[in-house]
Amino acid sequence: MPEQIPPDSVGLVQPQSQHFDQALALDCGRILPEYDLIYETYGQLNADASNAILICHALSGDHHVAGYHCMSDRKPGWWETAIGKGKPIDSNRFFVVCCNNLGGCKGSTGPTSINPKTGKAYGPDFPIVTVRDWVNSQARLADALGIQQWAAVIGGSLGGMQALQWAIDYPDRLKHCVVIAAAPKLSAQNIAFNEVARQAIMTDPDFHAGHYYEHNVIPRRGLMLARMLGHITYLSDDAMRKRFDRELHEGKLNFGFNEAEFQVESYLRYQGRSFVDRFDANTYLLMTKALDYFDPASEFDNDLNKTLAHVQAKFCLMSFTSDWRFSPARSREMVNALLANKKNVSYLEIEAHHGHDAFLIPIPHYMQCFQAYMHSVFPFFEGVANEV
Amino acid sequence: MPEQIPPDSVGLVQPQSQHFDQALALDCGRILPEYDLIYETYGQLNADASNAILICHALSGDHHVAGYHCMSDRKPGWWETAIGKGKPIDSNRFFVVCCNNLGGCKGSTGPTSINPKTGKAYGPDFPIVTVRDWVNSQARLADALGIQQWAAVIGGSLGGMQALQWAIDYPDRLKHCVVIAAAPKLSAQNIAFNEVARQAIMTDPDFHAGHYYEHNVIPRRGLMLARMLGHITYLSDDAMRKRFDRELHEGKLNFGFNEAEFQVESYLRYQGRSFVDRFDANTYLLMTKALDYFDPASEFDNDLNKTLAHVQAKFCLMSFTSDWRFSPARSREMVNALLANKKNVSYLEIEAHHGHDAFLIPIPHYMQCFQAYMHSVFPFFEGVANEV
Repeated sequence: MPEQIPPDSVGLVQPQSQHFDQALALDCGRILPEYDLIYETYGQLNADASNAILICHALSGDHHVAGYHCMSDRKPGWWETAIGKGKPIDSNRFFVVCCNNLGGCKGSTGPTSINPKTGKAYGPDFPIVTVRDWVNSQARLADALGIQQWAAVIGGSLGGMQALQWAIDYPDRLKHCVVIAAAPKLSAQNIAFNEVARQAIMTDPDFHAGHYYEHNVIPRRGLMLARMLGHITYLSDDAMRKRFDRELHEGKLNFGFNEAEFQVESYLRYQGRSFVDRFDANTYLLMTKALDYFDPASEFDNDLNKTLAHVQAKFCLMSFTSDWRFSPARSREMVNALLANKKNVSYLEIEAHHGHDAFLIPIPHYMQCFQAYMHSVFPFFEGVANEV
Repeated sequence: MPEQIPPDSVGLVQPQSQHFDQALALDCGRILPEYDLIYETYGQLNADASNAILICHALSGDHHVAGYHCMSDRKPGWWETAIGKGKPIDSNRFFVVCCNNLGGCKGSTGPTSINPKTGKAYGPDFPIVTVRDWVNSQARLADALGIQQWAAVIGGSLGGMQALQWAIDYPDRLKHCVVIAAAPKLSAQNIAFNEVARQAIMTDPDFHAGHYYEHNVIPRRGLMLARMLGHITYLSDDAMRKRFDRELHEGKLNFGFNEAEFQVESYLRYQGRSFVDRFDANTYLLMTKALDYFDPASEFDNDLNKTLAHVQAKFCLMSFTSDWRFSPARSREMVNALLANKKNVSYLEIEAHHGHDAFLIPIPHYMQCFQAYMHSVFPFFEGVANEV
């Protein structure tokens, strides 16, 4: 709980919701007849709607990307480090938009929402959604907000994949595309980790084939395991060593199984347990599938150069040296394909020991470069007050 | 099933068992009043018992390290690639011994064995055993076999840790110590993976706090997840890419959750399922703890140089470039500590894309170097027939 809102925060914010009654055709072949997107905005849209930024969230993210919902909030939005007054994504200059993706569990239509056809929660009947489906639904949100072209679409990890898909599918609707700690597709190892997470959830006897809401239970064990495993892949070996090394939770070995013996075990158990109370297992499954399926080049003869031939946005890609989930090599695949097409691309490989999570951490060099790039996105103050 | 036993195999072999009724004091403070070790031997012990090799097995290994139990065996022992006639560990020249470790589930006393005190399976009451405990029990087996000094103690992964512990605890009982793809202690990330595996098993409702034998069930889901996760860490990202990439199981995406969509998912599910039928969950838990606890330097002010000051064996260490479970850097920690003590050490870093599993794979350069080193271990044929 902040005693007072930090002056560089976007401050107290309120989510808004937008209903869409135009059916959305999905990649899976099914149609979503209607849906809601919950979203937040920070800053003011300027007169010609040229200062709008779309933030795309990652696996367990949501629309609450900066600021506080109330004074008793324990934490601000998930990217408070990058969004706010005077920060890289400067709310004094930009109109920042972020929505909870379709299939989410934080207010947009997803497995926990009521299916109007049945009057019951969608549960496992919610269709599998793809990165492209999300981008299409975000484009409708842009329409609703009167934004023809984003000044930038920005995302980290799975969010960066959405930014890339935007540049491919709607080349004239974004001026800049900022892709952080992402990859043009998952590797077999990435898919393997997702598969273990899914199996953990789906084999939990409380999963009930996804219909757990009706049984008044949640697949707590499975979701906890999925999150614990996820956390290992978000941190680097080095970050874990620096943070936990082999430090013992109670100063000595217990020669038993029930208590966490090493601090790292205690940390993971805590992360796993607390996640269960704030995230939906069916949504987790959907998000992992969206990751697995993302492979825009698959429609272009598996040729990333061809895939990116028609993008118009200027690109900024950033990666982190210790990220082994989506390593710098994965970012360079995209950079090289953009260069092969003579596109305008900036690339920054940031020295950081934090692993994949680095994209959420205010590493000074990262923040400085991010800020410099964002200054190039929109260098003028067109009718937007500049107050810190 | 081999139509005929390959000529360079040790051939048809039979496990033997040795009962020990002298109590064994364990690191955990408990005492094992009596126990059995099951083991196999290949080749002939020479007159002065100077050609004996001890092989130490890793997490899911056992005493059946080479050869076949019968003509209908689908596969030979787990290190058939390295042990046999004319192979690096040459059964024409060496007397090779390998036992199933205490706490195992393949015949040595472990959780599935009957506790003589209760008349029921030990189950979760089997004490937590450490690498040192194993080495002590192996030393008694050496006594029983009339082997005062091993020509070499050899192991990969957790087996390499046992070899290292042998050199520390019984410096005059081995001439050579061969440590492959190992580390002087686990990193926080290594422990973290083990913890997820343990939680998968222990939160499985069929685990029954380890007393599942009495309920006629096994924690199938948890053990499957543990194995799937293990497999990811045994392979490299690159090995998975080479083997599976993003190949689809049925040639297309299903937009569903039940069927394995990518080949890598299908592979992992198969590995997980088949493991459940051949391994005990309580043993799996014990093995992961032995790994977590291994840290010989913890008794020497966390100083590996001090820890290795009194070893007498000549060392050979080998690591594999793509092994991210126990990377080459972890082997170099041991090499450097040995060099700091002016010990005799050979070190080989083998270019291999296979990941941690490389130590089981007959990579030509690896096998050649291994063979050359083993030739130096025992260059003469002292009364042992040399037949291939």
